[in-house]
Amino acid sequence: MRKIHVIGIGAGDPDQLTLQAVRALRSTDVFFLLDKGEVKADLTALRRDMLDAHVEEGTYRVVEARDPERDRRAGGAAYSPAVGDWRSARADIYERLIAEELGEEQTGAFLVWGDPSLYDSTLAILEEVLQRGAVTFEYDVVPGISSVSALVARHRTGLNRVARPVQITTGRRLAEGFPEGVDDVVVMLDAHQAFRRYADEDVDIYWGAYIGTPDEILVSGPIAEAAPRIERLRAEARERKGWIMDTYLLRRHPRD
Amino acid sequence: MRKIHVIGIGAGDPDQLTLQAVRALRSTDVFFLLDKGEVKADLTALRRDMLDAHVEEGTYRVVEARDPERDRRAGGAAYSPAVGDWRSARADIYERLIAEELGEEQTGAFLVWGDPSLYDSTLAILEEVLQRGAVTFEYDVVPGISSVSALVARHRTGLNRVARPVQITTGRRLAEGFPEGVDDVVVMLDAHQAFRRYADEDVDIYWGAYIGTPDEILVSGPIAEAAPRIERLRAEARERKGWIMDTYLLRRHPRD
Repeated sequence: MRKIHVIGIGAGDPDQLTLQAVRALRSTDVFFLLDKGEVKADLTALRRDMLDAHVEEGTYRVVEARDPERDRRAGGAAYSPAVGDWRSARADIYERLIAEELGEEQTGAFLVWGDPSLYDSTLAILEEVLQRGAVTFEYDVVPGISSVSALVARHRTGLNRVARPVQITTGRRLAEGFPEGVDDVVVMLDAHQAFRRYADEDVDIYWGAYIGTPDEILVSGPIAEAAPRIERLRAEARERKGWIMDTYLLRRHPRD
Repeated sequence: MRKIHVIGIGAGDPDQLTLQAVRALRSTDVFFLLDKGEVKADLTALRRDMLDAHVEEGTYRVVEARDPERDRRAGGAAYSPAVGDWRSARADIYERLIAEELGEEQTGAFLVWGDPSLYDSTLAILEEVLQRGAVTFEYDVVPGISSVSALVARHRTGLNRVARPVQITTGRRLAEGFPEGVDDVVVMLDAHQAFRRYADEDVDIYWGAYIGTPDEILVSGPIAEAAPRIERLRAEARERKGWIMDTYLLRRHPRD
């Protein structure tokens, strides 16, 4: 039976690998590195560096493939397949990789930035491939340090306040309004800096980009002061590197 | 200047330590192990095992102290100091430990189960100690695999569904009602199995106790079927071990 590890490799700092992840890397025959386009080539290089650092040379193969990520730069209208179609296209690729590149008794691995449980579709795609029934395999999940944990660790703050909830959501949803019933909100996948909408409110922001890497940028403070600084730094960094990965926590002051 | 590491050590599986955490352990002179009473002695033993496994003997000291955790078994009325008093009592202990047990040029560490950012008060207490001004120190935070990440990894599911939010909250809050605006809710610190309230609803539960340890128990499924099983397993385990640490994800089916 084929085996597959879905390995969370942390938010960018190679030292955020767990011992369990290192063990899983070392038991892998074939690594599938899915690249989301030229701008993410840096991320493929970082994963190759991790393999070089932790796995004996000559004990594994790397198979690179192009992941049909929706191209956010193209904007909504120009290129916007339904999520279902897009997932189906990815399942085609994963199915082919597993069938053609992984021997019946071999172990493959997908390396996922952060934690595979948070805004990552690898698990859903593997389930879809299994349901199709053309290839069979066992799989397990190795949890990783999410960009959310890494962000607040660097800011030395908590996600939640005492006995209170925290919500993790997307930029698109934050643009529709501050979530109900929570004052602590972590925002991921925000290409449009939805936090700017709250610049007049009594909210602190804890923002970070490329967290845990040499390019790391951190900004925190009252959102009215921090927002223009984040906008500037974000634009500069995106220009310089060609891509950006950022996350932030919004903390609304209690209304007394 | 004294230094302190606040180290997330994962949810129970010693292999969930990150390389960064191992490095921090090895740079520590004094470990402060705060025990929340006899029932948690197992947890102190697990931390001592981690030190034995990863740090050279003779290079560190362990200082154990009693953490004045609110005694949940006593119920609300019998023993219920205000959270402020309770935190202040803890700050007294942390301040004394740092002042008396840590040399001016030494590095101390607090080992936190899971991730220090999630329902843990160590960071807030250290900030309070610093604000008092009687001792000074630098500190950093090493993120850890939270019980939340470990839970969903074992169940091989995600925390959120595509482009949708997830909320992390407490049992007490869940008992007041299903949070607004989310269908995926992770519940921590639930001594009273608040999920039972939703047994008639179209909700799946992914529950786990002692995740990542040899005592691990996992149950998942439609809540109507799973709830009685969880109640029984939870009561048996609590009786057998004297304490329980459990967490769960509730996933409500979309209302079409």
